[in-house]
Amino acid sequence: MAAEKQNEKKVTPRSQDFAGWYNDVILRAELADYSPVRGSMVFRPDGFGIWELLRDELDRRIKKTGARSAYFPLFIPESFLKKEAQHVEGFAPEVAVVTHGGGKQLEEPLIVRPTSETIINHMFSQWIHSHRDLPLMVNQWCNVVRWEMRTRLFLRTLEFLWQEGHTAHATREEAERETLTMLEVYRSFVEEFLAIPLIVGRKSAAERFPGADETYTIEGLMADGRALQCGTSHFLGQNFAKAFEIRFLDESNQLQHVWQTSWGVSTRLLGAIIMVHGDDQGLRLPPAIAPTQVVIVPIARKPDEAEKVRAAARALRDSLEREDVRVKIDEREGVSPGFKFNDWEMRGVPIRIEIGPRDVAAGEVVVARRDRLGPEAKQKAAFAEVPATVSALLAEIQKALFHQALGARDANTREFDDYTKLAEQMEGEGGGGLAVIFWCGNPACETKIREELKATCRAIPMHQNGASGKCIVCGERATERAYFAKAY
Amino acid sequence: MAAEKQNEKKVTPRSQDFAGWYNDVILRAELADYSPVRGSMVFRPDGFGIWELLRDELDRRIKKTGARSAYFPLFIPESFLKKEAQHVEGFAPEVAVVTHGGGKQLEEPLIVRPTSETIINHMFSQWIHSHRDLPLMVNQWCNVVRWEMRTRLFLRTLEFLWQEGHTAHATREEAERETLTMLEVYRSFVEEFLAIPLIVGRKSAAERFPGADETYTIEGLMADGRALQCGTSHFLGQNFAKAFEIRFLDESNQLQHVWQTSWGVSTRLLGAIIMVHGDDQGLRLPPAIAPTQVVIVPIARKPDEAEKVRAAARALRDSLEREDVRVKIDEREGVSPGFKFNDWEMRGVPIRIEIGPRDVAAGEVVVARRDRLGPEAKQKAAFAEVPATVSALLAEIQKALFHQALGARDANTREFDDYTKLAEQMEGEGGGGLAVIFWCGNPACETKIREELKATCRAIPMHQNGASGKCIVCGERATERAYFAKAY
Repeated sequence: MAAEKQNEKKVTPRSQDFAGWYNDVILRAELADYSPVRGSMVFRPDGFGIWELLRDELDRRIKKTGARSAYFPLFIPESFLKKEAQHVEGFAPEVAVVTHGGGKQLEEPLIVRPTSETIINHMFSQWIHSHRDLPLMVNQWCNVVRWEMRTRLFLRTLEFLWQEGHTAHATREEAERETLTMLEVYRSFVEEFLAIPLIVGRKSAAERFPGADETYTIEGLMADGRALQCGTSHFLGQNFAKAFEIRFLDESNQLQHVWQTSWGVSTRLLGAIIMVHGDDQGLRLPPAIAPTQVVIVPIARKPDEAEKVRAAARALRDSLEREDVRVKIDEREGVSPGFKFNDWEMRGVPIRIEIGPRDVAAGEVVVARRDRLGPEAKQKAAFAEVPATVSALLAEIQKALFHQALGARDANTREFDDYTKLAEQMEGEGGGGLAVIFWCGNPACETKIREELKATCRAIPMHQNGASGKCIVCGERATERAYFAKAY
Repeated sequence: MAAEKQNEKKVTPRSQDFAGWYNDVILRAELADYSPVRGSMVFRPDGFGIWELLRDELDRRIKKTGARSAYFPLFIPESFLKKEAQHVEGFAPEVAVVTHGGGKQLEEPLIVRPTSETIINHMFSQWIHSHRDLPLMVNQWCNVVRWEMRTRLFLRTLEFLWQEGHTAHATREEAERETLTMLEVYRSFVEEFLAIPLIVGRKSAAERFPGADETYTIEGLMADGRALQCGTSHFLGQNFAKAFEIRFLDESNQLQHVWQTSWGVSTRLLGAIIMVHGDDQGLRLPPAIAPTQVVIVPIARKPDEAEKVRAAARALRDSLEREDVRVKIDEREGVSPGFKFNDWEMRGVPIRIEIGPRDVAAGEVVVARRDRLGPEAKQKAAFAEVPATVSALLAEIQKALFHQALGARDANTREFDDYTKLAEQMEGEGGGGLAVIFWCGNPACETKIREELKATCRAIPMHQNGASGKCIVCGERATERAYFAKAY
């Protein structure tokens, strides 16, 4: 049997080849597939189901802040991209260009949006006239295209899905506050919902969004010791307002440029979930974003027993659905229970319920949690207690995955005050983890670390403890600690 | 005041210039705006909010049938489009082509998807091996691009949003059943949720989707007497299965091509809502898809009164929100109550609640329904009764809008057995309405009507009453009645 055979083929162990393990898990768990267009990927239903849960919850949280959903065109006139000097420099090299439409060559080529600041701010300039029109806060969920050379499923693809929020405010203070509000929305969402512990801070000038005055970031540490940028929130100052002439009459009837922000997270979050929580058995999904939270596997050989077991399984399913648990029964025929167990472990379903004829007779089932392995993963539960047991367990698994990831993150975070030791760590096995170092802020020191150690400044924490030290590169006085790491 | 001034400018009356009225309503209700890219539009929050409600409900109904969401690439290799002969003929003239990416000319140009049969069926050929892999049912919500020359907000734009479902089945019968299942999902959804009465039937060969063996349609009649295609469901036979080599081993181990369907509805449904329900005061939204179902307008001049009125308005809002009513208080300052009433009528909010100091003292409010005009639109309700009154009224308005539209549709549907009379009707004022005629099925007769009267075959009802007659064009025997109309 093809399915059985595939199942026997183990995934590459994480410790042996992390990138190989990552691809194996994605393909075997049927989260995604390669597409015939180089660099583009296909989101299969099991992967897209995670994105839907993530998107719906984040959308609720974004709307609570007052932003509303809108939708702007995919195509942007080439001339728009050129209006903001840093923006064009950052994005022009990686855009896809439409030159022909309806069988004819276009007078002005169209850019496929790599991000929508330009087109959205053009519209803002039409809509904003008075202080009464402010703040204007919109968010769009859409696809964007960036011509990447080296692509990787979920993490870096030619086309990806994301949300991009864009806001305009009357004052600098209000826009700065909005930038930080969204950063906190992202932090709490990713930590609570995706169970991924984060470091938070501002980016160095070299790592800023092209066109922003300040970029703030949430960064996760993957299990291989590399960092992954999980979301960014930008304070744009008046750069786009000036480029696109977005002005308003303030309360004293003076014409002013607006102050702006933009912020986004993308489908690369799915990559983070896999790389933070997965193990050698496959995916491990935090219950909050698991399209299937519980799978029930009925086990019976004889036909009369099978009927009773199936009836009990369906009754259990119904009792769980009444509690809004996302539950599925695996009634596939022709594959063994062992195959099914492995298959659902690969797919990362948080809880498996096993039920056989003896369980039916005893009025109980075996409940196995995916976040643990071996005998300690299993417990018995009486039929009537299953909904309560499952609810409690789902909450517990959500927390346990966060704390496991937090433990791994902390174990892989190190302070350095010596460049040689930092270099040893970064050049050793694995990604190198997070390095906390004093950095004077000089771009030359940052460049040296990037070029020599392949590590970049991931975040400069906004709340420093007041200590100062010597820059790990040049030895000059440094008043801020920063996180450096190799990154995806 | 700019806002007051704009409000005074009435929209073009429907009877005077329907197209002018349509555009006025869209811009004044802030549903959408023109974009700087010719033929592309911007969905503003008030318009996109309708789409979100529509999408979420339809998505629930689609998932109930067993289809799951997925996402496929925006770009399709040019060679893919050419694999199915009719498909390329239908779509090649209207595609947008990406020729450059990352600063280089591409070896093979990429098409921006006009629809995704080709890329999805390529993936299906990778995923389908055995009858156990069937049926395979996926749906994607996405943007598509078709290079339209004459565009119109929501109805015909270069880029639009839609869902496209694609399914593969083991037998012809199962695929045919799926085609009709989805047609019925669309019909019930549009009639129940959008309150738009429909005619349902199959398309003539000339109107079929390029690559389909049979296309089924739901059609609405707009208030100007023109028909609008609101959704289609296609039986694709084995055309794409053969072009993309999608084969499976059946239960007797024989290699077979799958049988397929595809089906979709798009953001043009927003155009249908406007054109079916709107009046000279503006938009009228069915409560099910109204982002704001109730607006509360507090009316008070003196500061001490204003405070009491505001407190009462907020208490009312809270009591409505507890019943899951989407409610908003209009606390704008500097605009009159009359301005606010007109503004919310323009925006189509189903229910307005007016509350002033005397109402607060009497413990009651005025409740005005948008589907009626004048004094009969208003009723009083005691504070405690507001939630019950509003809930009942929302349900009633939903039904009333459907029945008003049904009445208009029926009044504008006529049987003809004489070509001259049909011609008079189609050439007269307005769109001409729906014509029910006997047609022999000969494409030449259909072409004559299209070329001479600008009317097309909208639908051939699947359930005929067994009567036969003479073809209205050639006089030959005809066994089927068909709906013809001018259409968007």
